[in-house]
Amino acid sequence: MSEEDELAARVVAAMYARDRAAQTLGIELLETGAGFARVAFTVREEMLNAHDSAHGGYIFALADSAFAYACNSRNDACVALQCSISFAAPARAGMRLVATARERALGGRTGTYDVEVTAEDGGVLAFFRGTSYRVSAKVI
Amino acid sequence: MSEEDELAARVVAAMYARDRAAQTLGIELLETGAGFARVAFTVREEMLNAHDSAHGGYIFALADSAFAYACNSRNDACVALQCSISFAAPARAGMRLVATARERALGGRTGTYDVEVTAEDGGVLAFFRGTSYRVSAKVI
Amino acid sequence: MSEEDELAARVVAAMYARDRAAQTLGIELLETGAGFARVAFTVREEMLNAHDSAHGGYIFALADSAFAYACNSRNDACVALQCSISFAAPARAGMRLVATARERALGGRTGTYDVEVTAEDGGVLAFFRGTSYRVSAKVI
Amino acid sequence: MSEEDELAARVVAAMYARDRAAQTLGIELLETGAGFARVAFTVREEMLNAHDSAHGGYIFALADSAFAYACNSRNDACVALQCSISFAAPARAGMRLVATARERALGGRTGTYDVEVTAEDGGVLAFFRGTSYRVSAKVI
Repeated sequence: MSEEDELAARVVAAMYARDRAAQTLGIELLETGAGFARVAFTVREEMLNAHDSAHGGYIFALADSAFAYACNSRNDACVALQCSISFAAPARAGMRLVATARERALGGRTGTYDVEVTAEDGGVLAFFRGTSYRVSAKVI
Repeated sequence: MSEEDELAARVVAAMYARDRAAQTLGIELLETGAGFARVAFTVREEMLNAHDSAHGGYIFALADSAFAYACNSRNDACVALQCSISFAAPARAGMRLVATARERALGGRTGTYDVEVTAEDGGVLAFFRGTSYRVSAKVI
Repeated sequence: MSEEDELAARVVAAMYARDRAAQTLGIELLETGAGFARVAFTVREEMLNAHDSAHGGYIFALADSAFAYACNSRNDACVALQCSISFAAPARAGMRLVATARERALGGRTGTYDVEVTAEDGGVLAFFRGTSYRVSAKVI
Repeated sequence: MSEEDELAARVVAAMYARDRAAQTLGIELLETGAGFARVAFTVREEMLNAHDSAHGGYIFALADSAFAYACNSRNDACVALQCSISFAAPARAGMRLVATARERALGGRTGTYDVEVTAEDGGVLAFFRGTSYRVSAKVI
């Protein structure tokens, strides 16, 4: 494991430990790296909207968590400035969803990250893109 | 109350009753109308992220709920195609947030909605914009 | 005229003078202010796409110009980080379009701006939202 | 060449022939396929903004052209509903830029397309994402 991936693992583990939202949502941390993160959760009945599919807020929350871990992984504290999400297919109760965040650009204080939310069969349910802003603090 | 606002009230009440996510999130329905909705919730400890502010997923979920009620309010079932959110300021535990959704354009099968998420002092915490897609079904 | 509006007028006039793109596009500067700008152009035959409507790139360019003048108007040089545009109706050859940019949030080094592109009858053709990033330089 | 790629080639050639904007902008068609397109242009002095970099409108126009060709390539006429662009690095006069559009999702009447705008050294200058809407017409 490279030095920067090891740092990422420590930083994200520390973030996860104090991230009450991730725990409330049942988010599991699957994999980390410098500028990278993969998380998962299972859609619960209580996450369904009036159309009987997962409320967009929960899909967004999963993607946004992967984004947060990826953009903070270098130990420079970052916040989300702007995010967008395109919904390709609905998620149903009981489905396990995986969100994978990858750094696409990093320059000055800002970065661009792509997150894909996939079902277990590999189909992409949502495409998320986030813009991060580095504040002047360390995560750990 | 106009006929279309009365229809909106009935449609949204029916949606809300089966929207388990809205209930899980503690979302209250404050006001409805044709192409319009206002909802609120209070940020709970369990919604906080590692930076001690409300996880973006919850802010998004509140805005997305207002959007869903507004775009379905004419009783034509609609789904979200694409949403974006810009975060202007963090929300802290205990803050009551209000999200107000307004229809900006409606044509063919698609619509554009703006949602503002404000704190009780009126300051805007997040700007959300959603694109809806009308499927071939009625809500009620 | 307030002091900050007067500064905005001077800054934007200086930008406009060296903005070859704005001139190539036939963009006129209609109004400026602190965090505000209004510009216009007329859709020319050469701006039409294969569907005989104005190419999205030109609509975006008009909106982006208003955004650029608005976010630089305080004399702190800013660049665009991320922009999104929703198209509500097509623009045809000969139509005069007006883009009005308003500052919605400004904090730290970043800002959020909304731009509406309207036809002469006041109908909105496109909704644009831009995120600006302040670099460490003055415009004039 | 597959049948659908051959159709794409014919459809896009027909679109290009009547796309006055693409010609005005000096856009060249490099490659097409079903749900795919690659185009290029060279940044001209007249495309520069007040910061001496290519005006965002031109970068967007290049990406949007690739998107338009990709989403119309199946011969079902499509229009852009919503697009977003993240700027990673500025483009200077004389640079040749290539935009590559790929279909990420297609369902019902709508689709999601990713476009990357790269410089000749392969560095990505901008990330574009577009949502298309299929109208009830054929391109050719």
